[in-house]
Amino acid sequence: MANWFRRRRPATPAVLVGRPRSTVTARVELADLTPAIDAYLGRAAYLQLALFEDVSRAISAAPSTVAKTSLARVAGPHLDAHRGLVAELVARGVDPAEAMEPYRLDIDDFQRRTLGQDWFETLATCYVTAGFLTDFFLGLAAGLPAELRGRVESLLDVEAGEDVLIDELRAGIDANPRLGSRLAMWGRRLVGDTMLVARSALGVGDEAPGEERIEPVFTELVAAHTRRMDALGLTA
Amino acid sequence: MANWFRRRRPATPAVLVGRPRSTVTARVELADLTPAIDAYLGRAAYLQLALFEDVSRAISAAPSTVAKTSLARVAGPHLDAHRGLVAELVARGVDPAEAMEPYRLDIDDFQRRTLGQDWFETLATCYVTAGFLTDFFLGLAAGLPAELRGRVESLLDVEAGEDVLIDELRAGIDANPRLGSRLAMWGRRLVGDTMLVARSALGVGDEAPGEERIEPVFTELVAAHTRRMDALGLTA
Repeated sequence: MANWFRRRRPATPAVLVGRPRSTVTARVELADLTPAIDAYLGRAAYLQLALFEDVSRAISAAPSTVAKTSLARVAGPHLDAHRGLVAELVARGVDPAEAMEPYRLDIDDFQRRTLGQDWFETLATCYVTAGFLTDFFLGLAAGLPAELRGRVESLLDVEAGEDVLIDELRAGIDANPRLGSRLAMWGRRLVGDTMLVARSALGVGDEAPGEERIEPVFTELVAAHTRRMDALGLTA
Repeated sequence: MANWFRRRRPATPAVLVGRPRSTVTARVELADLTPAIDAYLGRAAYLQLALFEDVSRAISAAPSTVAKTSLARVAGPHLDAHRGLVAELVARGVDPAEAMEPYRLDIDDFQRRTLGQDWFETLATCYVTAGFLTDFFLGLAAGLPAELRGRVESLLDVEAGEDVLIDELRAGIDANPRLGSRLAMWGRRLVGDTMLVARSALGVGDEAPGEERIEPVFTELVAAHTRRMDALGLTA
């Protein structure tokens, strides 16, 4: 359940992180940029469903029974998060499909762009995009009313199943160093697409926030991404 | 949670069922044919994962947000069943992947043959094969030790999400009668493949049971299949 909004991580050498850490700043900034409740829930619910689909694709393409059944542990939390967020919408008297609909095209498009060419790229997608975006939506949750925030935080588990993805990816990279450089490139493309889809979730009323407000928000998220790539032995 | 092994269904006209019902006979016969515990758990676990993958494919291909999020309710119980069965293997000190491995090729092959050409055929697969096989494994559970049987029965929910599949299929058929006749044919092929994969799970020691023992086992399962197709307004 750990994530950078809620607990300190062990210190990471600055050379890996690349920028100073600014957890408190980012958190304040994100709480400030939380969209309206139904928009938050609708977007987060559809996104968790998309992340679930990515893992499902990896399950179907898994080369072994071990990998298949391990990945089932990764899929569960995204499905549970989707269903929990849908239940929140229903409890508010909101039609969940209508609440998700405005975000469908953007997220479907994001999903297509981050599909990956093979099983390992799909695994990297599950690892990188889910980590970044779940982290991001946990940060935005800071701007929700306290009770709802608590429930949403218990639904979004950034590190759920991360160990499975890291193990499979590392095993692949260890067996084939060229895979490592391919995945390092893929990771850079992924984080670019992921930041764009995250950015589109930020909004205060009709006004799009300026760069000066967005920049600090992403600083810590990018640092967390760097640590994720580092856990694969890859440079972000 | 209802299924034919545990509760009486409302009477169905004989013309729909096609054969006399023989719940008690079938149940006794199935309990008699239950494979060894680890074989039962391994096969059932891999099968529930395959059924989960089928639903996941339907989620990814769903034409609307409503369909996508409704189908998430269908995927959950299969994933939960898979994880619960894996947990039973782990609790017995058995490596789950090793326990599932012997059934992988057969079930993967079954999955390929029942993939379906489009979204509606995949939905019909989710409905027909999951209903039949979950029902079948519930029946086989009657031959497990009492405590384990209770836990397995609580994991296997034949009718979970069936309403979602029926609604989507009926809507499609109502909008396009030609789809109905295509799905009726697809349903016949599905039940044939499904019976073969179920049959391969029956075994007492090394000896394959003879026709005279298998026949009554399938009578009620086929009747339940007929009722499922009837719920779509289709002839089995």
